[in-house]
Amino acid sequence: MPSISIKGKNMPESPIRKLVPYAENAKKRGIEVFHLNIGQPDIKTPDCALQAIKNNTVEVLAYSRSEGSEVYRSKIADYYSKNNINVTANEIIVTTGGSEALLFAMGSITDPGDEIIIPEPFYANYNGFSIASGVNIVPVISKIEDNFALPAISEFEKLITPKTKAILICNPGNPTGYLYSKEEIEKLAEIVKKHDLYLIADEVYREFVYDNVQHQSVLSGFGLENHAIIIDSVSKRYSMCGARIGCLVSKNKDVINTALKFAQARLSPPTFAQIASEAALETPQSYFDEVTVEYKQRRDILVNELQKIDGVKVANPKGAFYCVAELPVDNADKFAQWLLEDFNIDNKTVMVAPAAGFYSTKGIGTNQVRIAYVLKKEDLITSVAILKAAIKKYNAN
Amino acid sequence: MPSISIKGKNMPESPIRKLVPYAENAKKRGIEVFHLNIGQPDIKTPDCALQAIKNNTVEVLAYSRSEGSEVYRSKIADYYSKNNINVTANEIIVTTGGSEALLFAMGSITDPGDEIIIPEPFYANYNGFSIASGVNIVPVISKIEDNFALPAISEFEKLITPKTKAILICNPGNPTGYLYSKEEIEKLAEIVKKHDLYLIADEVYREFVYDNVQHQSVLSGFGLENHAIIIDSVSKRYSMCGARIGCLVSKNKDVINTALKFAQARLSPPTFAQIASEAALETPQSYFDEVTVEYKQRRDILVNELQKIDGVKVANPKGAFYCVAELPVDNADKFAQWLLEDFNIDNKTVMVAPAAGFYSTKGIGTNQVRIAYVLKKEDLITSVAILKAAIKKYNAN
Repeated sequence: MPSISIKGKNMPESPIRKLVPYAENAKKRGIEVFHLNIGQPDIKTPDCALQAIKNNTVEVLAYSRSEGSEVYRSKIADYYSKNNINVTANEIIVTTGGSEALLFAMGSITDPGDEIIIPEPFYANYNGFSIASGVNIVPVISKIEDNFALPAISEFEKLITPKTKAILICNPGNPTGYLYSKEEIEKLAEIVKKHDLYLIADEVYREFVYDNVQHQSVLSGFGLENHAIIIDSVSKRYSMCGARIGCLVSKNKDVINTALKFAQARLSPPTFAQIASEAALETPQSYFDEVTVEYKQRRDILVNELQKIDGVKVANPKGAFYCVAELPVDNADKFAQWLLEDFNIDNKTVMVAPAAGFYSTKGIGTNQVRIAYVLKKEDLITSVAILKAAIKKYNAN
Repeated sequence: MPSISIKGKNMPESPIRKLVPYAENAKKRGIEVFHLNIGQPDIKTPDCALQAIKNNTVEVLAYSRSEGSEVYRSKIADYYSKNNINVTANEIIVTTGGSEALLFAMGSITDPGDEIIIPEPFYANYNGFSIASGVNIVPVISKIEDNFALPAISEFEKLITPKTKAILICNPGNPTGYLYSKEEIEKLAEIVKKHDLYLIADEVYREFVYDNVQHQSVLSGFGLENHAIIIDSVSKRYSMCGARIGCLVSKNKDVINTALKFAQARLSPPTFAQIASEAALETPQSYFDEVTVEYKQRRDILVNELQKIDGVKVANPKGAFYCVAELPVDNADKFAQWLLEDFNIDNKTVMVAPAAGFYSTKGIGTNQVRIAYVLKKEDLITSVAILKAAIKKYNAN
């Protein structure tokens, strides 16, 4: 039998994947499973986006331009300018989700064996994209005690080698919910300029910030025109995860011209999803206001309830819709599986994402979990009550 | 300024891309350009697919499963069984176009520096996917004099090294239109089994075969269960290029399990496009019969008209909707540009794809062009008349 590549063997499984069969079994046994494990919001997609699809007049579903339609990119540029990010349509390449934007960015700036420094815990799929691109991730640890704030710049300095090509941040962070401050972005700007690195910022949760703090984009006045690459997506912004539309944004022409060649090879981003995404830009501000209020309330409930459990440590998220909690259990992987296999209250249980998969360094975060507050408040309250009882019973076993 | 990767610099531009500005300029000067340069059919997308999109009841546009929806994959398996390809839903991974299926296949079976042997001329984007995957393409020349039939197996044998991981064919071929015979697939089956290689078959043009010859899939009885990987797509089959839905098919569990990890990293294929593609499977046979008759007539007209031009050599295509022609010009690149810049008849001209971009070996195919017969018959006749007059004038210059 012909062999599988080392790359293929090393591709990580999603940290949640191995739990899926247990969740399916639980459902077969009549257990209701609250899914706190994934970032699939329950929020409705804006009506303007859904209507645009129903009213589409496509007769031949043709390729769009590889970089995305001219009109759509102009409208994205308008959206950015409203968000204090001054870019033109030609500085944007529409991609198949933020995922593809990241693949294009890595492909454009790294060769096999190059390194990208990422504060951990980080979005687990960065591992997959790195392996697919032949890049080595070099983690720098951020701590739950600091709410996962930016590690000291001296920690980054220690890790920079001639192979380092970029620092990658997710802001606000998945899985941490941490929102970088202006001062933190300034520090990052300084170090990437000093060492001539790229600063890749995954800003897909830009709108999801709470407590009246302003989101700081890497392209909002940090002098990073040559260095910054924004990864963006409509998935969370408009609750359109299934559209698979994102974009790569850079004012560095070499980056755009190179990423465009990757875009051309795969022909075009999906046409229907571009129609929906273009229309989604007309979503009224009230939609976001309501969503933000909703998520803020969910966050507050989740964090408050979690803090009431003995021995639980929670990082207070300022953005996105995740939080990382440290549980008083021996191993979060085992505990998450046990929750699905052996525990329920009134035929209800919860599924959480063990956080070890969000760390690159082995052996840390093993008793942490990521909780996505993508469910309505009552369900969150029930979920945390289940968790509380479960921790007690698990530790009594 | 931070550097672009060698990989990024080496990513090829589409062979047509550099002609695009000339075509745009021609249009600005009021010239009508007949696009024989791309495989974007003018055929209408089946009504059932378009209606399914209009009638969709999505409220939250959520992620689908990474491998594609259960129901859609079952229906694809039914489609295959009607085409004498016996696979189950679990042997199929739905991808974002055939492009992504190829990326997943390469990622699953190759490491940087590995080699894939491909008969040339071949679909130009194979170059891009190879560079993105760190794979080296090793071309084996097929000849216009043989209609681009499979090169002698001894030619493949000469090229196999310990780094060779696969042979990749496109059947029917883009850009050649060549349809491999049962005997040719048998020969390929023998060599891949002998050397324990994969046989990747891009079969996206499966339905586009003429002259009552049957298409031979690599998974139709050649004993390639462990070796064959099919790359497929709805793009051409249903004239849905903009959907960006394809699939990777293999009965080799290691391949499927590995490709699935690549699929998980990018979360899911586009949801709306899966709805359309699932509905497209209900397209009545009459649609394909009409399309095949239409393309056959177009091919016959194109090839007949081209053969009437002095000095033109044409490979007679048995499938897909492309043909490669050798023109009596010094350089097809220059000629194609000149057609757009300096030539027209009654304010009409044609755009063709210079074939050099479809060869990996430098210096061959430089006076060949790929012509896509994706336009209606009258336009094809006009186009060839323009080509004929253009060749005469170009050579008189």
